[in-house]
Amino acid sequence: MHNRYFSSDPAQNKIAVELYETVKDLPLICPHGHVDPRLFSDPDYTFGSPVDLLIIPDHYIFRMLYSQGVTLESVGIPRKDGSIVEGDHRKIWQLVCDNWCLFRATPTGIWIRDELADVFSITEKMNSDNAQAIYDAIDEKLQSDAFKPRTMFERFNIEVLATTDAATDTLDHHQAILDSDWNGRIVPTFRPDSVVNLDFDGWRDNIDVLSNVSGITVNDYQSYIQALEQRREFFKSMGATATDHAALTAYTEVLSDADAEVIFQRALAGEASAKDAARFTGHMLIEMARMSSEDGLVMQLHVGSFRNHNPIIHQNFGRDMGADIPIRAEFTKNLRPLLEKYGNDLNMTLILFNLDETTYSRELAPLAGHYPILRLGPPWWFFDSWMGMHRFLDDVVETAGIYNTAGFNDDTRAYPSIPTRHDVWRRACADWLARQVVRGFIDDEDANDMIKALSYDLAKQTYRLDS
Amino acid sequence: MHNRYFSSDPAQNKIAVELYETVKDLPLICPHGHVDPRLFSDPDYTFGSPVDLLIIPDHYIFRMLYSQGVTLESVGIPRKDGSIVEGDHRKIWQLVCDNWCLFRATPTGIWIRDELADVFSITEKMNSDNAQAIYDAIDEKLQSDAFKPRTMFERFNIEVLATTDAATDTLDHHQAILDSDWNGRIVPTFRPDSVVNLDFDGWRDNIDVLSNVSGITVNDYQSYIQALEQRREFFKSMGATATDHAALTAYTEVLSDADAEVIFQRALAGEASAKDAARFTGHMLIEMARMSSEDGLVMQLHVGSFRNHNPIIHQNFGRDMGADIPIRAEFTKNLRPLLEKYGNDLNMTLILFNLDETTYSRELAPLAGHYPILRLGPPWWFFDSWMGMHRFLDDVVETAGIYNTAGFNDDTRAYPSIPTRHDVWRRACADWLARQVVRGFIDDEDANDMIKALSYDLAKQTYRLDS
Amino acid sequence: MHNRYFSSDPAQNKIAVELYETVKDLPLICPHGHVDPRLFSDPDYTFGSPVDLLIIPDHYIFRMLYSQGVTLESVGIPRKDGSIVEGDHRKIWQLVCDNWCLFRATPTGIWIRDELADVFSITEKMNSDNAQAIYDAIDEKLQSDAFKPRTMFERFNIEVLATTDAATDTLDHHQAILDSDWNGRIVPTFRPDSVVNLDFDGWRDNIDVLSNVSGITVNDYQSYIQALEQRREFFKSMGATATDHAALTAYTEVLSDADAEVIFQRALAGEASAKDAARFTGHMLIEMARMSSEDGLVMQLHVGSFRNHNPIIHQNFGRDMGADIPIRAEFTKNLRPLLEKYGNDLNMTLILFNLDETTYSRELAPLAGHYPILRLGPPWWFFDSWMGMHRFLDDVVETAGIYNTAGFNDDTRAYPSIPTRHDVWRRACADWLARQVVRGFIDDEDANDMIKALSYDLAKQTYRLDS
Repeated sequence: MHNRYFSSDPAQNKIAVELYETVKDLPLICPHGHVDPRLFSDPDYTFGSPVDLLIIPDHYIFRMLYSQGVTLESVGIPRKDGSIVEGDHRKIWQLVCDNWCLFRATPTGIWIRDELADVFSITEKMNSDNAQAIYDAIDEKLQSDAFKPRTMFERFNIEVLATTDAATDTLDHHQAILDSDWNGRIVPTFRPDSVVNLDFDGWRDNIDVLSNVSGITVNDYQSYIQALEQRREFFKSMGATATDHAALTAYTEVLSDADAEVIFQRALAGEASAKDAARFTGHMLIEMARMSSEDGLVMQLHVGSFRNHNPIIHQNFGRDMGADIPIRAEFTKNLRPLLEKYGNDLNMTLILFNLDETTYSRELAPLAGHYPILRLGPPWWFFDSWMGMHRFLDDVVETAGIYNTAGFNDDTRAYPSIPTRHDVWRRACADWLARQVVRGFIDDEDANDMIKALSYDLAKQTYRLDS
Repeated sequence: MHNRYFSSDPAQNKIAVELYETVKDLPLICPHGHVDPRLFSDPDYTFGSPVDLLIIPDHYIFRMLYSQGVTLESVGIPRKDGSIVEGDHRKIWQLVCDNWCLFRATPTGIWIRDELADVFSITEKMNSDNAQAIYDAIDEKLQSDAFKPRTMFERFNIEVLATTDAATDTLDHHQAILDSDWNGRIVPTFRPDSVVNLDFDGWRDNIDVLSNVSGITVNDYQSYIQALEQRREFFKSMGATATDHAALTAYTEVLSDADAEVIFQRALAGEASAKDAARFTGHMLIEMARMSSEDGLVMQLHVGSFRNHNPIIHQNFGRDMGADIPIRAEFTKNLRPLLEKYGNDLNMTLILFNLDETTYSRELAPLAGHYPILRLGPPWWFFDSWMGMHRFLDDVVETAGIYNTAGFNDDTRAYPSIPTRHDVWRRACADWLARQVVRGFIDDEDANDMIKALSYDLAKQTYRLDS
Repeated sequence: MHNRYFSSDPAQNKIAVELYETVKDLPLICPHGHVDPRLFSDPDYTFGSPVDLLIIPDHYIFRMLYSQGVTLESVGIPRKDGSIVEGDHRKIWQLVCDNWCLFRATPTGIWIRDELADVFSITEKMNSDNAQAIYDAIDEKLQSDAFKPRTMFERFNIEVLATTDAATDTLDHHQAILDSDWNGRIVPTFRPDSVVNLDFDGWRDNIDVLSNVSGITVNDYQSYIQALEQRREFFKSMGATATDHAALTAYTEVLSDADAEVIFQRALAGEASAKDAARFTGHMLIEMARMSSEDGLVMQLHVGSFRNHNPIIHQNFGRDMGADIPIRAEFTKNLRPLLEKYGNDLNMTLILFNLDETTYSRELAPLAGHYPILRLGPPWWFFDSWMGMHRFLDDVVETAGIYNTAGFNDDTRAYPSIPTRHDVWRRACADWLARQVVRGFIDDEDANDMIKALSYDLAKQTYRLDS
């Protein structure tokens, strides 16, 4: 359905379709996501079974099944202890299809449906009866050359795709892509959480890895900072234009070098407290802003997720298993120390992401509508949905305008869902703008510029991918 | 108006009407409410005057009048000191009608209007001129046999109605109903707040009553737990399928038996502090979850109301006088100790209710979309309204789906308003689903299943009323 | 466009137009704003250049420009150190027009557009090409007699306009207006922040000014209270009907006279702590409620703005420079001490304003729907926008009704934007009510009464301007 998702009001619908037409075929800018670079370094990469592709890596899917009593073992999620889980992918696929009603009116339901239709040409709705036939149809496609990641990259019309990579990553896959004769633009993103957040699993070991990969022996705060700067420079040389930082809260605090050193030494000795970790992260966010101001890497900050909320799931299956739950966020007070130092800096950009929608109108839009360094990332995670996007636009644009946003990120590890996710965003923006046009808040000229900015320009410019 | 409340968009309106038609005559499942069981134990029960029925028990009505300077005495609310209040019900009714404009665009205004029309066949809008005529019309109906509660129960097509009963209640009225030749299904609900929340008015006396009714002398924590278990077993034998718990916050904490004993003894001695009370309630919520896991009673938790906010009203008129005000709520951190122990338990269900809409998308939907024990109760109290329902569905369904909700509760002590309240919910769901259909998010098959689930199935299944 | 901003649904649009027609020409009640009274005391007052009128005083405009890298110096905002800033107003106007796209879909964009059209008869959209021509057109108008403030007052059909004046103001301009032969009703508002909030810039000096203007030597808490009472009496004699109070939070606390004295003496000695200031403000809010209860001045409370968030901007340009950022607000607990003493007082009114929309449905509507003294101010600051107004009505009316709101305030220092701001409110209310009518929640009679109340009556009555 060409005008799917748009308002059923005929006047608004017509304008939405017109606006959408102007952007639906624009290249995709993918400045933040979690696709594995090995998809592109290996020209013969294949995706495995439909379940390998669509179910096992998708925490949106198995979290919902789990909420209704379907065990993770039964959908093939590997256990940390190596004990046996369901290995029959046809059986897993059947189980998912038997429970597909759970995804009615959810973004997951929409993404999978649109992806099956647009990428796999499968237009039947998944159900118990057709489960095996759909499995067959996907499976057949996956074995064809048209479903090699590089081929799909071109078919998807992706202009640039950023991966997310640990600060200690040697970026071998990125190097292999650069060394190949393939011209797809895949860039890394510098994500130092595992060496910055003192309470990150394995932080101490990660510091040793940092020493190794940087060639700088990290044994005090000064060498630590030097090693991080070395890694940023390396990432930049490999094409990175941005960094990404996750924190439980947006708390920032300037520590003196002496205080930073004391905490850092405690951490090296395995004696850092939870408070140390929070203060050190808060300090390092400011330090990372300092580096961004100097090296020009665009800084991203994602806050507000209480990770691994369910201890049994964490223990049995590890991180990122659909058990991360948002908490209340605060930016006005927490970010002030950082903004005091760098908020007026015209050399850098800080993009904010969060999981507490109450901050959109109360804090984020007013902050972004004042501070030159700030841009607002698109609605994140649970809010990367039709209504989530509308709430974001409703709550943000009147105060911050659209030009203080960073356009769209798909933020996904589900590679074949990328076109669908961008399409939903472009449609949501077309629908939203059409409402503004039909009511006379903006005119056609405004709307045409705005839909292009939201669909393409803002992401490219904000992430400095236009050079 | 057959299509009242539905979107005026013709395409959406048509679908909404069609969906609504499929559920409007389904029986009513009333799994949580505050109707007095004596309405049904006494076959000759009568409601008194229109004011006895519609005004004096309805805090929604007199709170709004009070906010505009109408004293509670003048609408006949009895004072605790027994001093005289207005006793002329025709005068009270006139006063209410004189001020009826206050209820424009409020759920109270809608419930009363629809109730007068649908239950009393009165379609005139209340105003100063027709006040006495409407009084007469209601009064006449109330004296007819058709307005006996049991007769109305059948006319309302109620399949099952749960009352809410103190843990110390002997359930005599329920026994009388069971002993009668009437077959309406009225079940009790176990509500132990008055013996669990140490700061509840009269807690110490309630413990003595608990000893009496259970036959277990409660003099320490162990006998206290035994007595509660005895009461749950009794309630279950009387048809109860659920418990209900109110708390200021969702705070939970595991206390050791020794710590629980220390606090319990302080409470028995009248020396428990506010902090003791908060910790003990937090502990007892986990303990009640343990019991639910064992006996299968569905657990309900209502949080976030600052009770008796206005001390003068509390002093003069008592509890539940329209002066309860919501506070900010937090679930992600507060519920974690309980979820750590029982969140993955497939034997039990925990239904969450709250008065802070910001938690819908940020905490409740993500939690319910992961933990198997959780279901979300329908929008509660102030949010049991057309827009409150739409915000609930908008904020919850994309993340948790509809199958992690508990369908609808009318939660009312206003017996004749029950059909209206269910009708508003069914209409709101039809309207919401029609929007999803007309925009192509779901298809007709989905919508038909979903409207039935939201109107009937989910409440019945979640509260285990299907056995 | 006569039906601009209204829903494009034909049925709703038609009703909205009809409702709007009934109020569009009603006089404007302006009970809260920041227009300088000298506009009216001087019969020959002129506005200066288009930039003097529209840009330099408008923090909504230069904050957005600043967020995109346009310096405040380049738009002519004077620096505190007196160093040179852009003085060529044609160049500034060009810069603003070059960046006008930033205001797409913002209330600022709409106000300026509507104001240019309705007040200056300029219907072209501002852009780089027509910047100078538009400048000329505005400039020409500004030099005509029709653009004298008093003439505009009558053309705008303003019935009454309240200014906001420091407690220490001698109200000379107001006296001059009263002494003149001009009959426009301009009333002062008593705003004591600069002598009440101990951390206000220059508080100590302001106390001396308070002594001078009141003729009461303020050297202790008792004389301080007397001086404030004297000022209130003076303001009242000059036509004031209201007071206005700003605080970071809604915190209130009753201090004993002895404690108040201790803090007051510390403040006189320049030794008050931040905690002293917070407690003293909390106490003085209750004290001001006491005075309102006695003298009948309507009390306004604005909370939730973290002022001067950007230290560099504060240092270089001073207060009110677009760098005030909202914080989370709380009313249920914070206001309780005040409400315990005065919440049931039928002699006074307390109007609440806030910048945290989450409190609308959770706290403010329930509070206003119970306490007789409370009324809710219209959506404030960032939320004085089309969608901000709809969220306010959506979140508040179902619980509090419209009669516990205070109607509309324009709250502006931008005098020529006043008609536009009222027009947007009246249209927003018409649109919102039309939706309620077309869906059958209210009928035509209700809607006609409600649009008039929201557009005119409620502001006039709540602020006691009807006498």
